[in-house]
This record gives sequence, structure tokens and C-alpha cells, in this order.
Amino acid sequence: MIDLPYLDSITRNTTSKIIFLVIDGLGGYPDKTGKSELEYAKIPNLNQLVSKSDCGLTIPVLEGITPGSGPGHLSLFGYDPVKYLLGRGILETLGIDIELNPNEIAARGNFCTVDNNGNITDRRANRIQTNISTQIINELKKIELSGIEFKIYPVRDHRFVLIMNGKNLSPNISETDPQILGTKPLESLPLSDNAINTASKINQFVELTKTILSTRETANMILLRGFSQLPNLPNFNFSYKLKSCAIAAYPMYKGLAKLLGMDVLNCGDTFEQEIKTLKENFNKYNFFFLHYKPADAAGEDGNFENKIKTLEALDKFIPEITNINPDVLVIAGDHSTPAILGSHSWHPVPVMIHTNKSINHNVKHFTEKDLIYGNLGTIHATKLMLLSLANAGKLNKYGP
Amino acid sequence: MIDLPYLDSITRNTTSKIIFLVIDGLGGYPDKTGKSELEYAKIPNLNQLVSKSDCGLTIPVLEGITPGSGPGHLSLFGYDPVKYLLGRGILETLGIDIELNPNEIAARGNFCTVDNNGNITDRRANRIQTNISTQIINELKKIELSGIEFKIYPVRDHRFVLIMNGKNLSPNISETDPQILGTKPLESLPLSDNAINTASKINQFVELTKTILSTRETANMILLRGFSQLPNLPNFNFSYKLKSCAIAAYPMYKGLAKLLGMDVLNCGDTFEQEIKTLKENFNKYNFFFLHYKPADAAGEDGNFENKIKTLEALDKFIPEITNINPDVLVIAGDHSTPAILGSHSWHPVPVMIHTNKSINHNVKHFTEKDLIYGNLGTIHATKLMLLSLANAGKLNKYGP
Repeated sequence: MIDLPYLDSITRNTTSKIIFLVIDGLGGYPDKTGKSELEYAKIPNLNQLVSKSDCGLTIPVLEGITPGSGPGHLSLFGYDPVKYLLGRGILETLGIDIELNPNEIAARGNFCTVDNNGNITDRRANRIQTNISTQIINELKKIELSGIEFKIYPVRDHRFVLIMNGKNLSPNISETDPQILGTKPLESLPLSDNAINTASKINQFVELTKTILSTRETANMILLRGFSQLPNLPNFNFSYKLKSCAIAAYPMYKGLAKLLGMDVLNCGDTFEQEIKTLKENFNKYNFFFLHYKPADAAGEDGNFENKIKTLEALDKFIPEITNINPDVLVIAGDHSTPAILGSHSWHPVPVMIHTNKSINHNVKHFTEKDLIYGNLGTIHATKLMLLSLANAGKLNKYGP
Repeated sequence: MIDLPYLDSITRNTTSKIIFLVIDGLGGYPDKTGKSELEYAKIPNLNQLVSKSDCGLTIPVLEGITPGSGPGHLSLFGYDPVKYLLGRGILETLGIDIELNPNEIAARGNFCTVDNNGNITDRRANRIQTNISTQIINELKKIELSGIEFKIYPVRDHRFVLIMNGKNLSPNISETDPQILGTKPLESLPLSDNAINTASKINQFVELTKTILSTRETANMILLRGFSQLPNLPNFNFSYKLKSCAIAAYPMYKGLAKLLGMDVLNCGDTFEQEIKTLKENFNKYNFFFLHYKPADAAGEDGNFENKIKTLEALDKFIPEITNINPDVLVIAGDHSTPAILGSHSWHPVPVMIHTNKSINHNVKHFTEKDLIYGNLGTIHATKLMLLSLANAGKLNKYGP
């Protein structure tokens, strides 16, 4: 949470409303012609809006650091992503909409294939289909070990989630995935004294799994990574005195919002449905986390043209959002996903904060290059929440 | 080291190569005509390069703080110079290429002149020549005290280094130099309980020195400052997963690089020889700290014309460096040394990070004024390492 000890003394509950639109993977990078996706895209509404908004660029974690979606979003909501790291097991579990208890330990698992000597020949078991991995998982559900409860859920293809519950458990154990071929899966080792029991139970679970799967030719072994517990995250509503909701089509972002204490609204799979949900619920909340996924997906696919199209598609929705007339409209991104790189990247992310009182200035395009000269400058993403609250009139004076 | 607890989980060892050129005292300041050394200098190669590089300015320590060479360099390599302070005794010792053990204590000493009453009349003993101070030092080497070993080395003129080794020693003692004339040298006082023995031994050493030097008219006493030990610096190679080397003509920079764990390559006294060493060793390392000293020396001399010439001389080497074709070329400075001030200064320092994927933008000149509008903005110098590693493809994604 924002590093301000007296936050509680300056936040105030008001009826003013903030829409916080997160364009996943918003930032891009020039292709050979020297222009980025945002520079090519026909985004008249965003360009018109930015010329009447506070604007700039955000650094999600640190200069040079490429964030995953977890740190990228935590930072936007004011949680220092270096202090609050969400484990891979936790995020994978959130992604399939499974609720966790604070004492449960989650791991990301995947089926792999080993040869007769037990050496890994395929770390992803030829990406077996979800219906097959679901069948195998049903077999593994029979495993019982005293003093510990295992739950196991399919995710997609060869991936699953393993959840442990019991006494004297710690997530501080090593992973069993050696991340290379031609070698055996690793034993899990305790990384602290209080994790000896957990590592032992995990190794027993893996051994029993091996026996159950031994008759299979592929997907005859498992690898476990990212043992983690729910982090102790300050509650978003309580910290900022907000009544917030999340409108996101993808499970992982819903799960993350739920972790922060936001209400997660049912909405369909499309952004159109998200907007409909936003309109229907606009009088019930005063903070709306609205998530737009397609830009990141196109960037991850390395599809420059498609990323442009996703941005243009979003642009068409902007008037619908501004017509709802929120007091503050933030348009930000959790990280950059340049199509030219085909992955998340460390590059600063465009941002604007629009109110009906926003000043005019010289930035005319919602692009990486123009926003270098935005009036906000290049700021850490954790600073957006206070700026949003301030613009919404939700912050008192700090100090007498 | 960079304030990121999970650094180890995101750094990765790759073959991509980074040349990190440090132009000592790079930044300058306008003279009466309103133009700085960099603005006057004919530096076509640097200007051409900056227009195709990420660029901006760096703050070495804090806004307003003038760094010494130690903090300036530590910061460039990602070590917070506020957290990792190199003592004056340590830096003086590194400067004469003497290796220290972690438990040794180094002090910067100088000969001074006292009158019959023991009051200081000349804090620098008329800057006696090095050959004379070397003779005096040979006399002082005879001093023996039980339980402690003293080593003493001439530096230059009236300056020397005193190194102590023994049990129960602490650098936490006060200096004997009152820094004013007409008063006696101070007794060293313990500043913590574990330093009582050290202060006592130092005072005994000074007394014996006084006796030995009592027949001399000048340089008949010593003053000791900057008692310090090697700081516990995280290893550069280990922290960033690099195989690094330092190519520097001056001893202090070699010593500092060695402290960080870099290989220090033999190179001659000129930058031409440094470049030759760089070429010869280019296939052996993936990080090259290349140090250019003349700009700082000219700035310290207050010689505006000469500083321009040193920058122009460097510019001619730039094609040789780019032709080596590193994946990332960083051109930075440890601090500014404006000739108009004749000393180090607190002014932000020009920087560029060049890769063959760098974007074009509006900055056309590698000057203090133009770089205010660089796409990196004005950033803390400790941020350069992560940006360099990111651009070299040496960082994994942070967090799931």
C-alpha cells in the first residue's frame, strides 16, 4: 500500500466516482518504420481526451524491470510490487477462480513425460488436452496423506493447481521442476526449518503420483513450481475509503481484485459486456476497475497489426465511457507489451487522468513519444491512486 | 545493490555484451557565453549516437549532492551510494593499488608542521615532495606496538596511507586532524565501546611518530583522517550474473572495480591503449567498464578549453567503440565537473543507452540542455544497471 503512514487521516468518503480503465499491455514499441502501435492506431477519441487530461508515463516496478500481470496491477492500485509479490501458485489459482484460505499453500503444477529412467523428455507432456488432464487429476485426487489435505484442479492443457491445507505448513520449499530436459524431477527441499514437514509431504505426494501414473506413456509425472500463500494485502476499500468493484472478463484479474477486497461483478467475455455492466452498476460504487485484455494478447502474439486493431477497437468505446460522466477517468496500463518483442516489457506505460477540470497542454497524441512530455512526467505507477483520489476530491489536506 | 529483493530470480546469464563507458566528470556548466563545454565541443559522433539512443540525465547521489569519485561510480553500478559509503582511508588505499583485507583499517594520513608548542603551523608541511615523504615513512615503519601491525605507504607529496591489522580493532574512532591552524593535533577518541583499543593504539602510534620526527623542522608531525574498513559490497558479477572486467588507466578506478569483483585488465595509461585492451578482450567478458579520465582532470583544473578538447578527443574514439558492435553501449558519467567551478558538482550528468533497437526521438545533441528532454528523463544513476541489463536481454519477467 502507498507509503504514507497518515493515509487514513486524509482519505475521505465522497460520492464522486472514479473509473480506472486498465488497458492490459498498453505500451508498445516502434517497428522498423519508427512508429509504435499507438502511433499507427487511429484513436481519435483517446487523442482528443489526452489533450484535455493530465498525462505522462508510468514505471510499474522499476526502470528496466519487466512486470508480470500481478505486479503490474498491484502497482496501479498503489501496492508497491516489490513489497507485495504474488506467488505463481497464488496467481494460477486466482486465474481459475478458486478461493484460497490464508493458511493454504498453492503450487502451479504441470504434467510432464519421463522415460524409463525417470528422466524428463517433455516438460509439458505434449500439452495434453484439458479433458485428458482432468481425467488424470481425478485419479490423483485419491491420494491421501495423514495430516494434510490436497486439492487439485485442472487449469488448461497440461497445467493444474495443487493446494495444500494442514498444520505446520510453509510455502518456503524449493520447486521440483529442474526446467531442463534429460534429468529427473527434483526433490523439494525445505528452505527454512519450519518447511521440513511441507517438503516431506510434497515429496511423498509426488512419489504416489509417479506410481499412479506409471502405466502411462506420456503425462506420466508431475512438476511443481511457485509454492506460495496469500500475501497479507491491505484492503483496498478500507485503505482508500472507497466502495470499489472490478469489471474484468478474465479470471486472473477478477481473482486479483477479490484479493484486494473489491466486489467482482459478473460480466460477460467481451468489453462490450463489461461496459454494459459498468453502466448498470454505476450508481452502486464509487470506484470501477475496468479491464481491457485484447491489447496484451495481441502484443504477446507478436501481432503488430492486431495490436493496432485492439487499440482502435477500444478507442470506439471511449465516448460511451465518458458519457457515463465519471468525476475522474483514469486510462492506464499494467505494463507494456510491444508486439515487436512479443512479450511484456520494461518500457514506460502511457497514462492519462481526465476530469472535467483537466488543463489543456501540448500533448495531442496518446503515444509513448508524446507522453514523455506530459505534465505528469514519468512517474511510478503506485502514484496514480493518490492522484486519482485527489482529482476526485477524496483527499483532505495532509498536515496542519 | 539495487533495492530489489528478487533480483536473483530475474537476472539471467546471456552472451550479449554491454560496454559501459564512464566519462569521468562528464557534465559541465555554461561559461559567461551561456554554453557549456559539451555545447561548445565538436562531438559529431556522440551527437549522432544520442539521436538513436535512450537518453537523459542522471542524479548520482541526491539532487544537490556533489559526489566524490567513489559514490559516483558505485551509483552507476547500481550500488546506492548512501548505503555503501567508501571511507576516505579505503579510497586513498585503492588509489595506490594496495590490496586490503576485510579486517584491516585504513586511514588517510598527511605530514604537517608543528611549532615548538606542538601547534600546527602548516597542515600540509609545505607539500613536501614524494621522495622526501618516502624517506620519512621508512623511518616510521620501524614503529612497533604489541598486538597490532602497522603498514604505511606514501601516496603523493605530503599524503600517505596508514593501515592497521590486529585483533579487536574498529574504524569507529575520531580523526586527529583539527582542520585548523594554531592548535595541537587531536587525540583520537573511541566512538563506540569496541573502538577503545584502536583509539589507544593510534594515539600511541602518533606519539612515537612525534618522537621520531622531533628533530625535523617541517613535516615533523602527522594528521590522520578517514579511518575506514572495506565495505561489505555485494559482488557485481554474482548480483547481475555477469562476467565483467574493468579497463581503466587510473589506480583508484581499478581498485574500486576490484572491490566489486570485476576483473581488472592491464591496460596502459592512455585511452587509446584502453580501447586496444577492450578489443583484445571483447570475446572474454560480457560487461566492460571502460573509464575515460581526462574530462574530469581538465574540469578540476578549471580549464574550460581543455575540457572541450578532452570531450572532442573522446568523440573521435566513438566509431571505434561502436564498430566493436556491443549489444548495449552505455555512455555515462560519474558526476559533473564543470570547468567554470573547477571541481566536482551536483549537476545532473548526461547519459545515453544505445542498442540497435533504440528509438528515434527529438534529442539531437549530447548536451546538458538537450538531455533534459531525453526519453529517460532525469533518473537516479543506480537505475542505469537494470536498464542496461534489460536492453541486453539479461532480465526475466518480474513476478507472475
